[in-house]
Amino acid sequence: MPQPSPITEAHHRWPLRVYWEDTDAGGIVFYANYLKFFERGRTEWLRSLELEQQRLKETLKGLFVVSETRVRYHRPCRLDDRLTVATRLVKTSRATLDLHQWVALHDQPTVVLCDADIRVAWVHAETFKPMRLPPTLTNVLPKP
Amino acid sequence: MPQPSPITEAHHRWPLRVYWEDTDAGGIVFYANYLKFFERGRTEWLRSLELEQQRLKETLKGLFVVSETRVRYHRPCRLDDRLTVATRLVKTSRATLDLHQWVALHDQPTVVLCDADIRVAWVHAETFKPMRLPPTLTNVLPKP
Amino acid sequence: MPQPSPITEAHHRWPLRVYWEDTDAGGIVFYANYLKFFERGRTEWLRSLELEQQRLKETLKGLFVVSETRVRYHRPCRLDDRLTVATRLVKTSRATLDLHQWVALHDQPTVVLCDADIRVAWVHAETFKPMRLPPTLTNVLPKP
Amino acid sequence: MPQPSPITEAHHRWPLRVYWEDTDAGGIVFYANYLKFFERGRTEWLRSLELEQQRLKETLKGLFVVSETRVRYHRPCRLDDRLTVATRLVKTSRATLDLHQWVALHDQPTVVLCDADIRVAWVHAETFKPMRLPPTLTNVLPKP
Repeated sequence: MPQPSPITEAHHRWPLRVYWEDTDAGGIVFYANYLKFFERGRTEWLRSLELEQQRLKETLKGLFVVSETRVRYHRPCRLDDRLTVATRLVKTSRATLDLHQWVALHDQPTVVLCDADIRVAWVHAETFKPMRLPPTLTNVLPKP
Repeated sequence: MPQPSPITEAHHRWPLRVYWEDTDAGGIVFYANYLKFFERGRTEWLRSLELEQQRLKETLKGLFVVSETRVRYHRPCRLDDRLTVATRLVKTSRATLDLHQWVALHDQPTVVLCDADIRVAWVHAETFKPMRLPPTLTNVLPKP
Repeated sequence: MPQPSPITEAHHRWPLRVYWEDTDAGGIVFYANYLKFFERGRTEWLRSLELEQQRLKETLKGLFVVSETRVRYHRPCRLDDRLTVATRLVKTSRATLDLHQWVALHDQPTVVLCDADIRVAWVHAETFKPMRLPPTLTNVLPKP
Repeated sequence: MPQPSPITEAHHRWPLRVYWEDTDAGGIVFYANYLKFFERGRTEWLRSLELEQQRLKETLKGLFVVSETRVRYHRPCRLDDRLTVATRLVKTSRATLDLHQWVALHDQPTVVLCDADIRVAWVHAETFKPMRLPPTLTNVLPKP
């Protein structure tokens, strides 16, 4: 597994702290919990575009759901570590967004703990059928 | 904190296993995760009465929500431990159930790790307003 | 259950946001997850006293573990809500701390969603036996 | 994304139930929680080979940590659903195992909700440096 340099200035960044809830008996952050960090990163990236998901659900009857993830775990981290989660839109398709995300130490942002390719689909909030991304979204999403 | 003997034959019992997800960097089960175990115990106790909560929500527009908990943590437990979670209805009121629950080592059921008094309220699934317990529930709940 | 007014100026306060990970299929924050919020509040309160738990474990071979909780759930909250978690030391004993904590809406801090009495014990990091609180801690803890 | 047929008889299978803790406000299982299900599947697969991870840590000073995941989410599932998590060793290298895992509806095992390629590395429990898989492990792991 070659490790690319996943960090760019184009990534939206959000600070995090590692709490007891995030760790496991190995003394490090449990692997599934990075997906919580990535989700917080995506949510805050959307919020930075003035898109709140609870409101999207109520007004557009749509949800973003994850359809595919590829995550590379490079180094562990521990209780009390300060982290940065970063998010960048890589590609927009008719009904999906492809994102690149990473988690790094906040004070040493070149020390990437974990990076991921994430595909999210825009689906109907009741049926979970894929829907075309509406202008409310496409008009504010950055051009990748 | 005196430790009562919380175990009775009247408790519904359900087996559990401690996985990595349940532990924290202290090497033991994280305190909030016992509330997941208690929730699984209540759900399986309801299921043993042929009450499925997804169906209750669809047919009766109601949910059980927890309104008060009192939890006493007696001893820690670790990865791979086999546990039993036990649940007993103590009191039924107009809109609430009072339950007693404990978690013990499966193979030494007198070694109680944690026990709890839990009050759950029956509420409207949209407004979360308390509702009178319907006959569908009161007819099948055991007399405490 | 009478609801006292649990808010005081003496509480340490910490901001939180509700993410997807915190919610459940009822559309609200899952009851166990408030204990994560309370734990974050206690950790940040300790950090405000320059006490980092990873360092305490390494230097003093001790951990704080929760020995008893009493939580009252007053109102639900939802995805995207901004919250405040507040923490106040109520009593210090030989080997335990008693804390009062609450979670409220950030922008309406009198709307308390949940409040709790939490007892934590200082224990040996390997044996989990209670230990006397060391001067490193008692010297910096506020007088309740 | 074409969906391969990921199911084989060679997969170790383990039953699961969806509880409130697993769901989110979308009404479905939260995407990170499938990684908990996969972890439980791997743990139970190891246990079926008489390998308990707490004991491995104590006797061999080693841990399995996840180094890479690729997860495809095909269909959502809901509260009360009964699931099967399946695990198969695909390849053994000097210090890593490659596994294929899927989660399906228990009563319709051809309805795959999610499948994954997971690489785990055998590392030192303190330093997290990769270690050669010891004979204790290689002697009991099935030939892929």
